[in-house]
This record gives sequence, structure tokens and C-alpha cells, in this order.
Amino acid sequence: MSGSTLETQFTTTRRVEFADTDMAGIIHFSNFYLYMEQAEHAYYRSLSLQIMDPQPDGSVIGWPRVSSKCRFLAPAVYDDLLEIRVSVARRGVKSMTFRFEFWRSDVHIASGETKTVCCRLNHGAPLESIEIPQHYSEKLVEAAVVDPRPSAAGD
Amino acid sequence: MSGSTLETQFTTTRRVEFADTDMAGIIHFSNFYLYMEQAEHAYYRSLSLQIMDPQPDGSVIGWPRVSSKCRFLAPAVYDDLLEIRVSVARRGVKSMTFRFEFWRSDVHIASGETKTVCCRLNHGAPLESIEIPQHYSEKLVEAAVVDPRPSAAGD
Amino acid sequence: MSGSTLETQFTTTRRVEFADTDMAGIIHFSNFYLYMEQAEHAYYRSLSLQIMDPQPDGSVIGWPRVSSKCRFLAPAVYDDLLEIRVSVARRGVKSMTFRFEFWRSDVHIASGETKTVCCRLNHGAPLESIEIPQHYSEKLVEAAVVDPRPSAAGD
Amino acid sequence: MSGSTLETQFTTTRRVEFADTDMAGIIHFSNFYLYMEQAEHAYYRSLSLQIMDPQPDGSVIGWPRVSSKCRFLAPAVYDDLLEIRVSVARRGVKSMTFRFEFWRSDVHIASGETKTVCCRLNHGAPLESIEIPQHYSEKLVEAAVVDPRPSAAGD
Repeated sequence: MSGSTLETQFTTTRRVEFADTDMAGIIHFSNFYLYMEQAEHAYYRSLSLQIMDPQPDGSVIGWPRVSSKCRFLAPAVYDDLLEIRVSVARRGVKSMTFRFEFWRSDVHIASGETKTVCCRLNHGAPLESIEIPQHYSEKLVEAAVVDPRPSAAGD
Repeated sequence: MSGSTLETQFTTTRRVEFADTDMAGIIHFSNFYLYMEQAEHAYYRSLSLQIMDPQPDGSVIGWPRVSSKCRFLAPAVYDDLLEIRVSVARRGVKSMTFRFEFWRSDVHIASGETKTVCCRLNHGAPLESIEIPQHYSEKLVEAAVVDPRPSAAGD
Repeated sequence: MSGSTLETQFTTTRRVEFADTDMAGIIHFSNFYLYMEQAEHAYYRSLSLQIMDPQPDGSVIGWPRVSSKCRFLAPAVYDDLLEIRVSVARRGVKSMTFRFEFWRSDVHIASGETKTVCCRLNHGAPLESIEIPQHYSEKLVEAAVVDPRPSAAGD
Repeated sequence: MSGSTLETQFTTTRRVEFADTDMAGIIHFSNFYLYMEQAEHAYYRSLSLQIMDPQPDGSVIGWPRVSSKCRFLAPAVYDDLLEIRVSVARRGVKSMTFRFEFWRSDVHIASGETKTVCCRLNHGAPLESIEIPQHYSEKLVEAAVVDPRPSAAGD
């Protein structure tokens, strides 16, 4: 991981729902991973890319996760409207690493990353990783590092 | 629905997890539906029945839900150990109706029902309802009504 | 329950997320209850009403659920954009019953109801049901029955 | 993070539920974070420690998350019985870092970490981090590193 701030490529919003909170009165941390996935999928959708892409041979191209992480910087509560900024932290031959920055106005709420691998899924067969097809890689372009200061997503 | 108390056929337990609570400090109501499903599947497992049963022809026998409902009688909180009593409220030709009574010691917490339909799932084809296969219906026997008083699961 | 079609009072949309699906390839039934709550809260928000309303005396007015139910009429899949139509099925002295109709274009996906009771929540004390305060009841008006045919939400 | 194998201090199990799967037929990655929390809380419970500990002054001692991460090494499917091995990776003055290794028989399924900070929660006030009280720190003992090879939980 480069540990620096990336140019945002896509921004979406997500409202914290009542069911996302826990008895401590704040959003339960596991929901940030759901929000990251929703933002990633919204990014794909904005590029007319499919997250589960059926192929002529009956297989499906999908993107299982290899890893994910998140740092929780400030609590978020019910009804907060979070802004989620998505960047491509790294585009490998077979994998994509996305970074997600969560903001509520000017408060930095959380900073996360997910790494996914492009796979061919055949009904009943094991996952097989493949090179990212051209129509994905052309659209998912690695973001420029715009600021060398360490990111909050770091380890 | 018969609106009466059924003989329990299977009992399991479930601990209320921290993530199941919400900012009101109690279990979020949606989790009761997850607990019902877990109890139903544990019941199937206890009978050596599979909830997704692959067939020789490549299809799968499954049990999509037609309806579900629940009445919430008393709040449950983090760390509560709930007892879930499962009965077969009605066994139709193609459908099963299960009833679930949730107890914490002698406090009746909730009372729910789910209705499922036996279906053949073919990869890519629409759901097709079928008669319940004999090895299911032999084991899932409709429970006797043991008490004519109205159940808390009623409408 | 009146078992008839009510005039819709509020409409919102919800996209089916990847995490809302299950291994049968369709939306898991429990999510409809989360969608209902989100639609109900969006309705409150549209009326400038709060679902957790702190009072001058330190208590909070909230709306715990008494019951909920849903009929699942047609499967919904990943990326579907569902329209959710909300009506007030019944406005009691202390309780509200909401009805929710889920549509994907002209396909009726599901039909549900929730019943909530207005409560005063004091930190550490048991829930206490109260009469619905005037600023809620003025805005949450029982919907007119526009069609006497049985609703899909029926029992 | 030390990036080495720790002696396991607590082991629990968790069955993969139907609702934990997604349309790709495997467990949705977000559930590993719920499983980690359940294992952590089961570990606390085994030590007679409370995750939300009410104090005489009306405050509550709790453990909000600072960060979490997980590597997904092999897919898990419905009905898998996962073994979760918990260790204390690092015990700070105010924070605890737990490591979680997920196994299905001899298949290493996932490897995760969470970092929590001990906080005093006062009703309505911001979170305030505090030194870990003695009755926690005596019981939550940092695990010995038993093998210097890099852990799968590494970055």
C-alpha cells in the first residue's frame, strides 16, 4: 500500500440507517464494509461495468475479495449523510485495490481499502483468477497520488 | 393459520450478539427473522435434511419464502440467551408453515411464522414449485394442537 | 387489518445491494424488513418528524415495533431498483400501522406491514407506551381505502 | 503489527448461516467481521469480562473499534462449521489488538485483526479513552509469539 492520498475518482453518499447502529449509539463498524462495497459497485455502475458479468460460454466474471481493512476515525450516528470518495489505489494484472474515504461534512469518519481479484466463476467449479479484461482495465484507471502525506488508511 | 398452541418439535438456542442491537439498546426486530431461519435450518439439519438439495439432474431443491411474520412481545438485549421452539404449523402439498416461539427463561419474547414453498431451482430458469418430496414430508410432520388458546403469533 | 388497498402517501426507492442476495441468487427475505424500516424513516424525514425524538426532560420518544409481516410475491435480484409505496393503514391512539408495497416497474415484488407503538424511553427504565403526540398525529394521517379488494399483505 | 504467529488463547466455533451467503454462493466477506466480534465477545465472556460494563458513577466502560482488517484465504460456504482461534496480538495501555484465525478442518479460511480502545461512555458525552482497568488487563494477557514466520493477517 502506498500510504498516500489519492485523487478521488468517484463520490457517492450513504445515509446511516437505524438498523446500522448498535447499543453504543453509533454505527456498528461492520457496516463500513457494506458501505465500501456499495460505493465500489456504484462506481462500476457509473462506468457501465457489471460486478457479475455473464459470459457467452456460461461462465461469469466476478470479483471476490482478497482482503479489506478500515480505520474508524470518528463515530457516525443515525441519520448522518456520509460522503464516500472512491479511488483506485492500485491496478494489478489480476487485482484491483480500491480506497474509500468517508466524510461527514469536514469530519473524516473512516478510511478503508478493499482488494479484489478478477475471477472466472464456472457453475460448481473452483474460482479461477484471470487477467482483468480490457473493457474493465480501460475504465478502472489507477489514481494519481496527489499528496505524499500518510493516509489514514495506513497500518 | 390455526391460531393455537402447537406441540414443540425442536428447540435450539441463540445468543443475542452486540451487532444485533440498535441505538435503542434492544435487539433490532429484523434479527428475529434471521433467528427463525437459523432455527428452521437447525431443525432440518437435526433431521438430516438439506435446505439446498442438489439433484442428479443438476437442479436443486430449495425452499423460498412465501411469507413471514412476527410479534414482538418483550424486548431482548445483548447477551440474552434465547430459546427458540420450532413447530410445523401446517404441512401442505407444496408448502410448509413453521412456527417459532422465543423465550428467555419464562419470558415470552416473540412469536413468529414463516411459510416456505418447495421449489425446483434450475440454473438460470424461473422458480418452479413442486410437491414436497417424500423424504422431507415423512420427517416434517405437522404438530398436534395441544392447546386451543390463541397464540401470540396470531393476527 | 382492513385487507384493502390504501392510497399511497409516500414513495421512495431502494436498490438491491450485492450483500442483500443469498446463494439462491435472489434477495434474502429478511432484507425486506430493513427496506420497510428505511422507507418508514424516509417518510418520517419527509414530514420533518424524528424517529428518536429527545425531549426536554431527558427522555426520548421512540417507536418500538409490536409486529411486522411480509408476503413475498416475486423474486428480486441484485441491482433491481425497487419502488416502495408507504401508507398509514391504521392510526391508533398509541400505535401506527404502516403498509409497504414493493414494485419493480409493474411487477409486484412484496407487500408488508409493520405496527409500532409510541413510547417514552427513559435511560435505564422500561419502555412506557404513550399517546401519540399531536405533532406526529397531525402529520401521520390514516390513508383512505380506495379499493375494497383484498391486499396482498393479508393473512 | 508483528506479522508472526501467536499462541491461541481461546477457540470458538461458528456455523455459516444461509443469510451469510451471497449470490456468488460463498459467505459474504463482511460477515467475517461479525464473526470476529462474536469470537472476541465469547472470549471476554469466558473470562467473566463484560464488553459494556456499567460503572457506579453511571458511566459505561466500552471498547469501540479503532481499526479492523481481514484477509480472505479460501471461500467458506453455507453450513461450514468454522473454528475461530483468538489471540491477543498486542496489549497497549489503552488499547487491545486481537487476532483471529479462521479454519475449516485443516483449511485456513481467513485471518483478521481488530484494534479496540478502552473508553468511558457517558450518556450524551463524547467518547473518552482511558487506561485499561486492572481487572481487564490481568485477564487479557498478550500472547507469546511462537513462530516468526509472517502471518496471513499481514499487510
